[in-house]
Amino acid sequence: MASINIDRDDRDLQITVIGAGTIGLSLAALHLAYLATPSNLTIVDIRLDLESHVLRSLPALLPQGLHACVSQVKLMSSVPVAVKDSDIVQECGPENLAFKSALWLEVERHAPPGALLWTSTSGIPASRQNAQMRDPSRLIVVHPFNPPHILPLLEIVPSPQTSQSVIDHTVGFWRRRGHEPVLLQKEITGFVAGRLAWVLLREAIHLVDQDIVTVEQLDKIIETSMGPRWAYAGPFKSFHAGGGPGGLEGLLKNVGPTVQACWDDTGKINMGDTWETKVIGQAREAYEFLDLEERDLANRRVLEAVRMVKRETKARN
Amino acid sequence: MASINIDRDDRDLQITVIGAGTIGLSLAALHLAYLATPSNLTIVDIRLDLESHVLRSLPALLPQGLHACVSQVKLMSSVPVAVKDSDIVQECGPENLAFKSALWLEVERHAPPGALLWTSTSGIPASRQNAQMRDPSRLIVVHPFNPPHILPLLEIVPSPQTSQSVIDHTVGFWRRRGHEPVLLQKEITGFVAGRLAWVLLREAIHLVDQDIVTVEQLDKIIETSMGPRWAYAGPFKSFHAGGGPGGLEGLLKNVGPTVQACWDDTGKINMGDTWETKVIGQAREAYEFLDLEERDLANRRVLEAVRMVKRETKARN
Repeated sequence: MASINIDRDDRDLQITVIGAGTIGLSLAALHLAYLATPSNLTIVDIRLDLESHVLRSLPALLPQGLHACVSQVKLMSSVPVAVKDSDIVQECGPENLAFKSALWLEVERHAPPGALLWTSTSGIPASRQNAQMRDPSRLIVVHPFNPPHILPLLEIVPSPQTSQSVIDHTVGFWRRRGHEPVLLQKEITGFVAGRLAWVLLREAIHLVDQDIVTVEQLDKIIETSMGPRWAYAGPFKSFHAGGGPGGLEGLLKNVGPTVQACWDDTGKINMGDTWETKVIGQAREAYEFLDLEERDLANRRVLEAVRMVKRETKARN
Repeated sequence: MASINIDRDDRDLQITVIGAGTIGLSLAALHLAYLATPSNLTIVDIRLDLESHVLRSLPALLPQGLHACVSQVKLMSSVPVAVKDSDIVQECGPENLAFKSALWLEVERHAPPGALLWTSTSGIPASRQNAQMRDPSRLIVVHPFNPPHILPLLEIVPSPQTSQSVIDHTVGFWRRRGHEPVLLQKEITGFVAGRLAWVLLREAIHLVDQDIVTVEQLDKIIETSMGPRWAYAGPFKSFHAGGGPGGLEGLLKNVGPTVQACWDDTGKINMGDTWETKVIGQAREAYEFLDLEERDLANRRVLEAVRMVKRETKARN
């Protein structure tokens, strides 16, 4: 069983991010803002323009004061070399089982035996990725939510083989960083955040497909109701509060028949059905120009607003 | 066909709220903050302690400066008297078809012919509530999201009989108030916000029932991912941005197989199944003490944070 024994300060760890896509770079930015020196971070990717890509894209994810650090990040194309002295290897490669399985064989051969091995997969459980590893207890899913340098959630999903030591060190690391690691008790297709988002998206697509609302109207509905509500309290807490003295039970008693009627009537669209042209077309038209800087700032401010309110309440009580 | 002809300023309208429950009082607070004088607002309810209930509960929903106004709100127990001079009748009674049908017959007989008739129902479409009305074109669903004095959404759902004049005046009223009326193109069970929230709740219950996460963990997941994300941009806009240059189409191509696997594996729990004991028990234990003041403040601050960011971007461009 893998036993992790990292006795250095988190800031002195050697972290290797595999894959310089959206998630990889966002996680790189997150690490860079914490590490003692930028050269503790390695980004590995086989793309030929890796250096110009990182120099162009990474600064936008960092506070102004850290832009200069970017040039000191180690960039490599060879996994064996990149993971040689790593304490943490965080994989953000393509969502493809063959790729990931082969990668972990290679990483396992070359990384120190005590290194943490994390996959950012949004859907391929560790128990499938680790099938060919010599020590499958080393691998664990650390599933971030885009953009992970801003949104605090990390779903931590061990396989049945993952060692307790790997779980504890992974959860501890993210907790010390002030992020929100949530440890799932069992593997499940798509994990939790994904399942919830996709099931809502399926119904959303159905409603647009049925011409009840447009893509833009549906987004507006969420932005002015569930979004702000759930930024502070998730669905159970919100419905429990909404039920008054009867709580969740009282609420379900009141609206139970409507809820069941909705469940019975849920849309059953599938990927590749005819809705794609309409829904994708509406999205493209409505969101031709997207301001990601505005999005990132809004996400930060919303999180900060909730934190402030909780701090104020705590100080008052 | 009902024709609305309200030529007074919104602040001078006579508004009658039927039902002094959570939603009724919250809407009363919303109106009170806008109306020229508190006596333009009437609250009607048959509960015997109506006066003490309103005096106790309504001030908490209002800014300090308006607490004194509460005593000037008209309180009545008789619908015919209460609606006699109303410009707007907003029903927030029990979620019960027999109650609502009978109420509209009575309201129709006694309210001025040009008054707007709004039902806050979360599930009974106007086409069922209006079945016995002399003029069914008068009724329209104005479905708020709890707490409606804070969250901006109003789902406006006309029946096939509702007149265009009723639709236009209803949408115009809420838009002038700075709220977010979204006009649905057709009636549908549970409307849009409800369907989306309930379909997510169903999967959430399933995941707790399967012991993947606890009620509290599931809420934490939403609060640190989808909540803050959707407070700024709904699911289509978010996924379109997350897909990079390929937009929503690119994203669905990348994660399509995972999405479909989640859809195929969706929980099929129903109201009244065995999950209730576990889920309700966990909610009761986790949320024994709920601070609604903190919730309201958090909701306000989140909405304000998003508004500020959008204003800043606009000023910059």
